[in-house]
Amino acid sequence: MPFSSSTSQFRKEVDEALHAFVGRQAPGLLAIGEDLRPMITALTALLSGGKRLRPAFCYWGWRAAGGEDVPEIATAAASLELLQASALVHDDVMDASDTRRGQPSVHRRFEALHAEHAWRGDAATFGEGAAILLGDLLLAWSGEMFETSGLPEDRRARGRRVYDLMRTEVMCGQYLDMLESTRAGGTVESALRVVDFKSAKYTIERPLHLGAALAGGSDELTASLTGYGRPLGMAFQLRDDVLGVFGDPSETGKPAGDDLREGKRTVLIALTLERATPEQASTVDRLLGDPDLSELGVTDLREIIAETGGLAACETMIDRFATEARTALAAAPVTGEAREALTDLATAATARTF
Amino acid sequence: MPFSSSTSQFRKEVDEALHAFVGRQAPGLLAIGEDLRPMITALTALLSGGKRLRPAFCYWGWRAAGGEDVPEIATAAASLELLQASALVHDDVMDASDTRRGQPSVHRRFEALHAEHAWRGDAATFGEGAAILLGDLLLAWSGEMFETSGLPEDRRARGRRVYDLMRTEVMCGQYLDMLESTRAGGTVESALRVVDFKSAKYTIERPLHLGAALAGGSDELTASLTGYGRPLGMAFQLRDDVLGVFGDPSETGKPAGDDLREGKRTVLIALTLERATPEQASTVDRLLGDPDLSELGVTDLREIIAETGGLAACETMIDRFATEARTALAAAPVTGEAREALTDLATAATARTF
Repeated sequence: MPFSSSTSQFRKEVDEALHAFVGRQAPGLLAIGEDLRPMITALTALLSGGKRLRPAFCYWGWRAAGGEDVPEIATAAASLELLQASALVHDDVMDASDTRRGQPSVHRRFEALHAEHAWRGDAATFGEGAAILLGDLLLAWSGEMFETSGLPEDRRARGRRVYDLMRTEVMCGQYLDMLESTRAGGTVESALRVVDFKSAKYTIERPLHLGAALAGGSDELTASLTGYGRPLGMAFQLRDDVLGVFGDPSETGKPAGDDLREGKRTVLIALTLERATPEQASTVDRLLGDPDLSELGVTDLREIIAETGGLAACETMIDRFATEARTALAAAPVTGEAREALTDLATAATARTF
Repeated sequence: MPFSSSTSQFRKEVDEALHAFVGRQAPGLLAIGEDLRPMITALTALLSGGKRLRPAFCYWGWRAAGGEDVPEIATAAASLELLQASALVHDDVMDASDTRRGQPSVHRRFEALHAEHAWRGDAATFGEGAAILLGDLLLAWSGEMFETSGLPEDRRARGRRVYDLMRTEVMCGQYLDMLESTRAGGTVESALRVVDFKSAKYTIERPLHLGAALAGGSDELTASLTGYGRPLGMAFQLRDDVLGVFGDPSETGKPAGDDLREGKRTVLIALTLERATPEQASTVDRLLGDPDLSELGVTDLREIIAETGGLAACETMIDRFATEARTALAAAPVTGEAREALTDLATAATARTF
C-alpha cells in the first residue's frame, strides 16, 4: 500500500464513522419492521468494501486548507461513501451487474431472498425494487450524515454548496455516460467529457473542494486543487477503464470482461476505434455490448484494443494526466504533509492494480 | 374545491417556488450538456401536476405553531414536492407503470426518446436507467431546496430532524409495501402497518411536524398534530386505495384497474379477503397482480370487493379515521385560521374525487 500512516489512520476513522452512523440508524429501521433486517445486512456488506478514495481526498482538501485533525471531518468526509454506495447500487441495477466489490450486487441479493422464500411474483423485479429503495436510502443518509457530522453550520453552509454541485454533476454525468453508450459515433472528446463529470470531478476534484470549503480555504487554494484534482480524476477513470478490460477479477471485484459485455463506450474504446481498421471496427461494434459475450469474444476485443494501439494511447493519456496533476501539486500552496499525502493518493488512484 | 382562499394562494406560492428552483438549476444542467434538456422537460412536466398536499400540511403545521406567512416557508414546504416527485419516478419504474398524473411516466418518456432516435441497445433499459437517475436528482434537490429556503439555521436544524426521519420512514415503508404484495397471508393489520409508514406519516403527520418544528412548536402541539395527522393519513391512503380500484381515470390520472394489475395488497384487498368465500378468495388470488388482466377481470374483482362487503368495510374505516382526525383537531391548541384550513385539507385528502 502506498499510503502513509496518517492516511491509513484516517481510513480507520472513516470506517468507524460509517459503522457508528449505520449503528445509530439500525434500531430505527428495525422499529419500523423486523423485515428491514435484510436492508441493513445488504448495506453493511456493501459499505465494508471500497477504497475510501473520496473521503481521503475530502480530508486532504480540509488539511490542505489548514483544517485540524478533528473527528468531525472524518464523519463529514465518510458521508461521501454513502453517496458513492447509493450510486453503485443504482448503477448495478441499470447495468444489470451481478457482482460488486466481489460480492453479489444488492439487487441480486434481494432477488435471491425472494427466490429462497418462494414469494409471489417475479424475483428479479423484487430485487430491482429493493435495490432502488436501498440506493434512495443511502442517498438520503449521505446528506443526513454530512449535516450531523458535528461541524458548525458556517462550515457546513460552505461545504453544502460543493456537495449540492457534486451530486448534480455526478447524476447528470451518469446520464451522459448512458447516452454515450447508446449513440453511435462517440468520439474521444465526447468520451472525455463524460469522464470529467461522471468521474473526475466527482471522485477527486469535488471531494477536495468540499474539504477545502469546510475549512474555509481560499479561492487560490481551490484553483490549485482543481489543477491537481481534475487531471488526476481523468487519469483515475482511464485507469479504471483499462482495469475493467484487462484487470484481474480478484483485484477489481468484477468478472473479467464485464465492462465489455455492458458495452461501455469508454475513452479506451474511443481511442481504439480511432485507430481501428474498418474490419476491426466492425468486430468491436458487433461484440461490444453483447451481454452473452464469451471468453473468446473478450479475448478478441482485448487483442484489438492492444493491437490498434488504443491501449498504449490510453496509457500515454493516463501518464500525461498524472504528470499534469503532479506538476500542479508541486506548485500548490499546501503544507508538506498534505503534499505528501496527495502524492500518495495520486499513486493509489492511478496504480495498475490496487 | 374545498380550499379556503389562503390555501389556494399558498398553492400558487408553492408552484412559484418550484418554478424558481428548477429555473435556477436548469442553466447548470445545460452547461454540463445540451443533452440534459430532456431531463428538464421530464421533471418540469411531472412537477406541473400534483395536489401539493404535503407542502400544504407543512405550511399549516408552521402556521399552527405561530409561524408567520413568509416566502421562505413556501420554499421549504415546496421541497417536499421534489421528494414526492422522486418517489413517484422510482415507484413507476418499480411498478412498470405507463402513466403518472395523466402523462407518460418518466421511464416511458425516455424509452420513447430512445426509440425515436433508433439508438443502440434496449429502449426500455435506457428508459429505466434515465428514470432512476432523474429520481436520484429530484431526491438530492429536495434536500438542496430545503437547505436553501432562506430559513435560518436554528429553524432548519429542528426541521432537518423531521425531514431525515420522514425520508427513512417512507423508503422503508415502500419496501414493506413491496414485501406485503409478494408474501402470502397478509392481514388487515399488516396492511395497515404499511399504510402507516408508507403513507400516513409521510403524507400528513411528518409534513405537519416539519412545519411545526421549523416554527419552534411545542411538544404539546406536535402531539396534537399527530392526533389529527395520523388518522387522517390513514384515511387518505385508504381513499387512494378505493380510488385505485373504483376511481375515474380522468380524475386519478391512472388507467382503471392498474392497482389491481400491479397486485397491490392494500387494506381494501385485505378487508375483502377476510370476508371472501373460498371461491371468491381463489378468484382474487388468481386475478390480482396479473399484468394482462382484462377489463372483464377488473370488473370481476370490483364485484367481489363490493359483494363481500370489503368496500363497505373500507369506507367505514375511512369514516372512522376521518372522524378521529376531526375530533383531535377540535381539541388542538391552534388558531381559528389554522383549524379552518386543516378542516378543509381533511376534506380534500379524503374526498371521493379530487
